[in-house]
This record gives sequence, C-alpha cells and structure tokens, in this order.
Amino acid sequence: MRTFDLSTGTDQYVKDLRVVRWEQYGLERDLPFQAMWYSVPPGSESPVDQHPELELSVVVAGTAHVVVGGNEYEVHQGNAFLLSSTEAHVVQNRSTDLELTVFSAYWMPSDG
Amino acid sequence: MRTFDLSTGTDQYVKDLRVVRWEQYGLERDLPFQAMWYSVPPGSESPVDQHPELELSVVVAGTAHVVVGGNEYEVHQGNAFLLSSTEAHVVQNRSTDLELTVFSAYWMPSDG
Repeated sequence: MRTFDLSTGTDQYVKDLRVVRWEQYGLERDLPFQAMWYSVPPGSESPVDQHPELELSVVVAGTAHVVVGGNEYEVHQGNAFLLSSTEAHVVQNRSTDLELTVFSAYWMPSDG
Repeated sequence: MRTFDLSTGTDQYVKDLRVVRWEQYGLERDLPFQAMWYSVPPGSESPVDQHPELELSVVVAGTAHVVVGGNEYEVHQGNAFLLSSTEAHVVQNRSTDLELTVFSAYWMPSDG
C-alpha cells in the first residue's frame, strides 16, 4: 500500500491556488486517470478552466461553489462533481476563513 | 455538470458501515473506474476486504487507520491511499466521536 500526503506533496501555484499534481508519484501504469489536489484560499477562485478531459472532483475540505454554463452549484465537503469534456468551469471558495481543498481525477473521454 | 451528494445517495449497510455505491448514477460509460463512499462509525472498522481491483481511497472526513500486511498507516482527512490488487485491508476508525468517511475509486489492473 502507498499513502499520499497533501501537505508534503511537491506543489506549484496557479494564481493563489496551491496545486499538487500526482505526476510526481509515478502512477501512470497503475491509475486509469491523472489526478491532483488543489486548494483555494478563502475568498478566492480558480481561473476559468476548460479541457477535453472529463474531471471528477471530490471536495475534501470546505465548500466549493462551481460556476458552469451560467449555473452555480454548491458542493459541500465529502460530495463530488463531474465535469464533462470541454465544460468551462470556475471553482470558488466563498468562505471568509476556511480553505477549500478538492481532489480531482481526470481522463480523456473514451471513443465508445 | 453533475453533482453527487453523499447524504442523499441510496445506501446499504455492511456491518455498521454505510456504503453508497456509485453504480446508482449510471456513469459506466463516462468513468474508467467504479466508485463508492463508505462511512465507518467511531470505534468501528471495515470487514477484511480483498479483491483483484486496485483501489484509490481519499479520506473526506475523519482519520483512517489502514491495516495491511501487518503494517498500519494513519491517513488524515484530505490524504489518500492506494491498495494494490489482492492486498487484504481493514480500515479502522479509532476516533471516539468523529465519523470516518472515505471516497474510493477502484478498477481492474491493466494487462500491460
């Protein structure tokens, strides 16, 4: 068994979001998806993101407000959201004091 | 976009663990894995589990103690653990008052 620790993972910053990409763990042959964590500080939001991969996100701390196609979704800790291929999305942390952290898995759509 | 709510998902109980399996969401054609949440009450633990699928687990609430092959691993909220194919495992919640909830994705190993 292997464990993966968000706090000690090698990170990069995208704007003020801390991003820990799972490429560093060398799991390409084991996992049928790529993965990352990202943390959004209180009052901040992700840049608009849009990509061909489907993306399943699980909120592991805080509450996400996800803005997609003119709609807003509130996703609490423990819950999840699935973005379709090419769906533009922004993930907001509207809390004034709590960090938002999301675990995301993403993969290219199958042809079938 | 679709959202998935742990609290309202159709569940089943395995011993005293609440299990919400994602088969109910009909995502077979979209996801390259199967998934579930499970919640372990304070002081309880999962039955021994062993299966051919690899399993990536993300702790979304509480702290997991995972017992595998004579070793123990402590996995805090937000962190993750990856079980290899056929690794027998028990997931314990040693808290006296906090529920442990885990999101797990699992898939058959590839041939390559």
